[in-house]
Amino acid sequence: MTTELEQTNRTMISRHSERGSYDRNVANAILDEGMVAHVGFDTGNGVAVIPMTYARIDDELFLHGAIASRWLSGFEQGKPVSVCVTLLDGLVLAQSAFSHSMNYRSVVCFGDATVVADQGKKDAAFKAFLDHLIPGRWDDTRQPDSKESEATIVLSVPIREASVKVRSGPPKDSAKDLGLGYWTGVIPLEMTNSAPIPDPEMEENKPVPGYVKDFDPRRQ
Amino acid sequence: MTTELEQTNRTMISRHSERGSYDRNVANAILDEGMVAHVGFDTGNGVAVIPMTYARIDDELFLHGAIASRWLSGFEQGKPVSVCVTLLDGLVLAQSAFSHSMNYRSVVCFGDATVVADQGKKDAAFKAFLDHLIPGRWDDTRQPDSKESEATIVLSVPIREASVKVRSGPPKDSAKDLGLGYWTGVIPLEMTNSAPIPDPEMEENKPVPGYVKDFDPRRQ
Repeated sequence: MTTELEQTNRTMISRHSERGSYDRNVANAILDEGMVAHVGFDTGNGVAVIPMTYARIDDELFLHGAIASRWLSGFEQGKPVSVCVTLLDGLVLAQSAFSHSMNYRSVVCFGDATVVADQGKKDAAFKAFLDHLIPGRWDDTRQPDSKESEATIVLSVPIREASVKVRSGPPKDSAKDLGLGYWTGVIPLEMTNSAPIPDPEMEENKPVPGYVKDFDPRRQ
Repeated sequence: MTTELEQTNRTMISRHSERGSYDRNVANAILDEGMVAHVGFDTGNGVAVIPMTYARIDDELFLHGAIASRWLSGFEQGKPVSVCVTLLDGLVLAQSAFSHSMNYRSVVCFGDATVVADQGKKDAAFKAFLDHLIPGRWDDTRQPDSKESEATIVLSVPIREASVKVRSGPPKDSAKDLGLGYWTGVIPLEMTNSAPIPDPEMEENKPVPGYVKDFDPRRQ
């Protein structure tokens, strides 16, 4: 696994190149913190973008869905996709409307999504989906049986032709606007969790597991 | 403006149809709460998905970017896009790994993105971008001059061929799994803001405006 992601005409950062990176470790950190990927592909009737959960193992990104999903048909021979994961960190208020921005971290990945046929690899992906979202949960749930596995399509996308964009810090107004006198700064944003809501179907008085108590969407 | 969104073979909800909706008011509420859209389109060299800010005015979704952005070239004649906005509301922990899910609200929209040439409409979109993100800010910032407007491409996408998916509430395990004894329930998630960070370039002791103090990413 190389450290650098692949720079192609699709991953070339043409705007705000100071925000761009091809550092695989930075990409991995964003992918590991995120929870929803937006996946785009040609449906045969135009492009569609749909939200999906995902997981990363080394330099592969895994997606999954029901085998019966019409979106996931046609991947048997591999199909090009673009996968984007975006973390929103704040709103950036500048003197000029034009210089307003967002603080964010995003990865855009291009590659052929292929169906994972190998059962061992498919099982590893199932574990990774839960480990990624709720570390500790996989060992504390009923794992998929063969019927459930067969009903699920798992796709693998190589994390290779990809780029990262990160904006952070204060607004950047042009010098001529600095004296305009508006309030400028950043409104920080982050995904937070609140107290877990027990399932009404669950037996009463079951203690909340430590990994649920400790869950932190910021992955800290 | 009709109340129902358009049901086509692209917007047809094939999986978990109980989560689907074509109610324009539900779609609008999701679009108005979200802050980042994921926009997919054919680059001529495969599909790309990129994160963009956006705004809604009535039944139009507006996107914008630098005229110099290579992603935004080729839209002069209109170009089909898919725009997805997803709000993540929670992680759903079930008895079986297979029944784990997320609570979310999402809109997927299909349509031709066209360049907004009319200056009045473009100005309205500029106002909407800020009004949408930070209500109250537009009147408290320097508005775009003609040079900034010319450097910006604004795209309009009709909100017509679109569908909504919403999952909420507790896990739904199959009856045979209910007695397995794992903790089940929901970890609620939401986007939250923290105390605004003043720009170091700003004159000192400038009070934080009311609309920044009152800013709520949940739009409540």
